[in-house]
Amino acid sequence: MAGRLIGVGLGPGDPELLTVKAVRVIAECPVIAYFSKTGRRGNARTIADRWIPATAEELPLGYPVTTEIPFDHPDYTAILAAFYEEAAERLAGRLRRGLDVALLAEGDPLFYGSFMHLFERLKAEFETCIVPGVTGMAGCAASASAPMTWGDDVLTVLPGTLPFEALVQRLKTSDSAVVMKLGQNFDKVREAFAEAGLLERALYVERGTMPNEKILPLADKTDGDAPYFSLILLPGRGRRP
Amino acid sequence: MAGRLIGVGLGPGDPELLTVKAVRVIAECPVIAYFSKTGRRGNARTIADRWIPATAEELPLGYPVTTEIPFDHPDYTAILAAFYEEAAERLAGRLRRGLDVALLAEGDPLFYGSFMHLFERLKAEFETCIVPGVTGMAGCAASASAPMTWGDDVLTVLPGTLPFEALVQRLKTSDSAVVMKLGQNFDKVREAFAEAGLLERALYVERGTMPNEKILPLADKTDGDAPYFSLILLPGRGRRP
Ligand SMILES: C[S@@+](CC[C@H](N)C(=O)[O-])C[C@H]1O[C@@H](n2cnc3c(N)ncnc32)[C@H](O)[C@@H]1O
Ligand SMILES: C[S@@+](CC[C@H](N)C(=O)[O-])C[C@H]1O[C@@H](n2cnc3c(N)ncnc32)[C@H](O)[C@@H]1O
Repeated sequence: MAGRLIGVGLGPGDPELLTVKAVRVIAECPVIAYFSKTGRRGNARTIADRWIPATAEELPLGYPVTTEIPFDHPDYTAILAAFYEEAAERLAGRLRRGLDVALLAEGDPLFYGSFMHLFERLKAEFETCIVPGVTGMAGCAASASAPMTWGDDVLTVLPGTLPFEALVQRLKTSDSAVVMKLGQNFDKVREAFAEAGLLERALYVERGTMPNEKILPLADKTDGDAPYFSLILLPGRGRRP
Repeated sequence: MAGRLIGVGLGPGDPELLTVKAVRVIAECPVIAYFSKTGRRGNARTIADRWIPATAEELPLGYPVTTEIPFDHPDYTAILAAFYEEAAERLAGRLRRGLDVALLAEGDPLFYGSFMHLFERLKAEFETCIVPGVTGMAGCAASASAPMTWGDDVLTVLPGTLPFEALVQRLKTSDSAVVMKLGQNFDKVREAFAEAGLLERALYVERGTMPNEKILPLADKTDGDAPYFSLILLPGRGRRP
């Protein structure tokens, strides 16, 4: 009998923010797979560290590219597609031998997660199961003590990769918002908040719930440098009896 | 020294989907508070059941109204405000005596949670801390094996309480969406999906991750009856290398 592919959400970064189920699945699976930058340990592996038994087979899946090629370049897509194919094949090898494979995912697996690319490639052949996780944005809001949505508030989640005009338009029509994937997009995104008249209401959070977490008003974050783990929160102001 | 108010996210319903931190906080806090319908046990209390020590003082906060008065009626607001004031005072009594109080919250505490109403009333006087949780929507997406957001997808979270036209407009301009708070709004919301041409892509999830969970295409859900724990998922279709 073939093994099961299990997508395991790891939460925002604090190892105590894995769910009880995630911890149990990691303890039980003979194979633990995770994405990483080639040659590095990877964020997922770091978050899950204390929960991975020494006896598990670890399967690091080293990304071929990250920020070197623009994401909308055809080469980028082709290289990534080949990487996902190959990674899926490595997992399939274990699954066909009857081994359950836990594929670790930062935050929640189905929310902008690379997990989904392997899931889509393997779900037709293998049994799958997903352990949801605390999202990065929920972790950041908790660290910032920022109530995000009230009553009838609409929440919009925006990738920082969107064009400037689209960001402004979306921000203007949102009661509350989260902008993820900042990195090189930070200056553009900050400018969009300013243009939408929302700079004073927004919070910038870096490495929420991790060591070296940083939280500051977006207005005060002026150096234009944003690491991978960073996002912007625009808390809602809806109905409050 | 005064005690701390700790908002504890319980996740979508499966007791194994509490975080390790939530379980630890519940085990350590001398006072466990939670909202409930007067005279009933309450959803939060049910989800957390196995984690609450017999020695803890339990503080059920019984809602005076729920669905009897329309939520936009001034009486509704006045009654709820008085209820939150009184509930906050009950918690403050324990906090002033130096006891830490865990206030349980379904899903994530800062995402449309009643927790926030007490948090806002108590945060000036007391130290606070928030344990983020897996949201209901993440739990439902996991149960439905529905990847929600890819690449540049914009996600919109909509309360079913919005007017029909607003729902249609928002759905038409979203790559992916979640509609929460269905209840009596179900027929209107379903009609909005149809009007936006999205009925065939949406999923209806009832009691995600709980016993009696139900998942079906929104198109097949025709009886117009939706319980408190139900939502609609519109999965995104963005960039997929
Ligand atoms: C590829 S997405 C994956 C999101 C993840 N699946 C989740 O549920 O949060 C990566 C983005 O999530 C955001 N993010 C995730 N965790 C974060 C954290 N702890 N602090 C700040 N941002 C975080 C950042 O914006 C980052 O660029
Ligand atoms: C007042 S809001 C609270 C949301 C919660 N704080 C969270 O993070 O999911 C309640 C709404 O959440 C949705 N919900 C929460 N958990 C759910 C579940 N397990 N299954 C279906 N819907 C759920 C329903 O739409 C419900 O009306």
